[in-house]
Amino acid sequence: MIVLVTDFGLDGPYTGQVQAVLQQQAPGIPAISLFADLAAFDIQGAAYLLPSYTQGFVPGTVFLCVVDPGVGSQRPGVVVRADGRWYVGPNEGLFAILARRVGQIECWRLPEVAHASASFHARDVFAPAAARLARGSGAAGERVSVQTLLQPEWPDDLFRVVYIDRYGNAITGVRASAMPGDAVLRTGEYLLPRGRTFSDVGTGAAFWYENANGLVEIAVNQGRADRELGLQVGTPFRK
Amino acid sequence: MIVLVTDFGLDGPYTGQVQAVLQQQAPGIPAISLFADLAAFDIQGAAYLLPSYTQGFVPGTVFLCVVDPGVGSQRPGVVVRADGRWYVGPNEGLFAILARRVGQIECWRLPEVAHASASFHARDVFAPAAARLARGSGAAGERVSVQTLLQPEWPDDLFRVVYIDRYGNAITGVRASAMPGDAVLRTGEYLLPRGRTFSDVGTGAAFWYENANGLVEIAVNQGRADRELGLQVGTPFRK
Amino acid sequence: MIVLVTDFGLDGPYTGQVQAVLQQQAPGIPAISLFADLAAFDIQGAAYLLPSYTQGFVPGTVFLCVVDPGVGSQRPGVVVRADGRWYVGPNEGLFAILARRVGQIECWRLPEVAHASASFHARDVFAPAAARLARGSGAAGERVSVQTLLQPEWPDDLFRVVYIDRYGNAITGVRASAMPGDAVLRTGEYLLPRGRTFSDVGTGAAFWYENANGLVEIAVNQGRADRELGLQVGTPFRK
Repeated sequence: MIVLVTDFGLDGPYTGQVQAVLQQQAPGIPAISLFADLAAFDIQGAAYLLPSYTQGFVPGTVFLCVVDPGVGSQRPGVVVRADGRWYVGPNEGLFAILARRVGQIECWRLPEVAHASASFHARDVFAPAAARLARGSGAAGERVSVQTLLQPEWPDDLFRVVYIDRYGNAITGVRASAMPGDAVLRTGEYLLPRGRTFSDVGTGAAFWYENANGLVEIAVNQGRADRELGLQVGTPFRK
Repeated sequence: MIVLVTDFGLDGPYTGQVQAVLQQQAPGIPAISLFADLAAFDIQGAAYLLPSYTQGFVPGTVFLCVVDPGVGSQRPGVVVRADGRWYVGPNEGLFAILARRVGQIECWRLPEVAHASASFHARDVFAPAAARLARGSGAAGERVSVQTLLQPEWPDDLFRVVYIDRYGNAITGVRASAMPGDAVLRTGEYLLPRGRTFSDVGTGAAFWYENANGLVEIAVNQGRADRELGLQVGTPFRK
Repeated sequence: MIVLVTDFGLDGPYTGQVQAVLQQQAPGIPAISLFADLAAFDIQGAAYLLPSYTQGFVPGTVFLCVVDPGVGSQRPGVVVRADGRWYVGPNEGLFAILARRVGQIECWRLPEVAHASASFHARDVFAPAAARLARGSGAAGERVSVQTLLQPEWPDDLFRVVYIDRYGNAITGVRASAMPGDAVLRTGEYLLPRGRTFSDVGTGAAFWYENANGLVEIAVNQGRADRELGLQVGTPFRK
């Protein structure tokens, strides 16, 4: 299976063009979109989502990951093999947190593609590489050190909002396992106690909980946390 | 075929996570999204859309239907077999109107899933059940009475807006067959005559018509009925 | 492969209903969405996108193209075969620019469908025709002259915005190959020099470039050109 994690949107035309390449070059292999609306240009936020949202997939899954404000520059593309799953994308930090947390990891630098466009490497470079991996042909290109993926100055957990979902819930870059069970979060003027799930708290109540992928998520039961608490991608919080 | 009817949005990550489970557990069976943007928490509105928008599908189609503000509580999940089609989802009223209108109907209570998350039953409970049905393995769980689906106090037709489409057209919970042919609708200060289709009325004219699924829909020819008539999900109207 | 180019949106219910017909009538053939958010009712804008965004697809690809404000009227549906690719949709100008630019072209008028709804020909007329083409059964209906596609008064390049993408970049109806290499564009009070790609210009700088499909595109590096330059579908510009 090929899984797309991007900031392209689904409506058009970028996801469709990538899907067309995948269908052509890896026929019969399902390609689904996991995230298409990552915050544009926010590589760091995406880096903290990636390990939590991809760890449940079976070995052999190929993740095509693109948040790429530097497209057209000399930044290299990489293939990463982490605990049996494949990741392809631009190497500007996107795989830094994944690389810290997994057990087994290997890394290759993607070879240059002769006639790639200057502005759409996802279609011209990364999708063909993902199709190759999905077909079982392994990584092309030169092996490079995992060190090239790392961002040593980034924290282990990122105390800010990294994604707002359709309900207005705010997903953060913090693992719930890194929080004391009774931690109260503070963001702006708000204090947020922990809940187990929505039906645990009163209608309209704001709280945080461990979401279904293990991250701290801030929510308002049957309301929109983004509007009611003034949250957006980038909003910090603390214990 | 598996058909998704949800309030998850497509951009991420919920529809993708459900699709991944379906691909894993029902490989080779196409899964498409019919509605991904039902109004969050509006179970009743969804209940009036469901029979009209699913009746055209062939027997054997599996509908995965999730509008689930009560996730994490003790509300049961159900499998419904109605006129040869399968429906899976939380039993909080979503299947109440379907149950009134179909001929043959059977109902099962979904068994508990041991390691389900507290907040994402669609991925952990309903998608595996839908995959099982699509594979042809039939319903698991205990047979229960169809009575458990019903909401006796709900009307046969719901005189309010239940969905706004991308053009700003307002789909309602009323079957066109329940309306006199020359009925004039009234919403707020507006009087809406009936038209057959868009090209029947002048540019900018507001009207209602029988949409391609048999429901009363309020539209403005080459305009947006939602903005021009002040309509949103929940807005009432009358004959 | 079947490729959808529409103004339906993906969230619901129109793309899903079309996909269901395609799955039913052309099982096993992948159907992907290239554009689902073309500007509603803007046939002319879509006509200038179509040749640039479909020319990269392999022969035999079937494009289901629907921007259809005239649905329900007597406007005919057509099948076009252009350089080995198939196009299906309403004939109100959508294929006019394609017809000017391709080498080999043939055209058929779609036969009437007996029980088509008045308002959703995409599901009832165009999707079955696309499925038929994808199955390899060729075009049904009467051959008609390519003249019926043309809009002789439309220019060869359209100097206005035809699409805004998710990043706020403005795609235009002008081929970059029709522009002098050092052309400076003018829109409103802004002067836009040419860049090769995003990383060529400073953060926040506005520029135009040849996008990955050969069209002139107006962008702001790591910003939103639509908001910062006041652009929307229809905004004119000049050399």
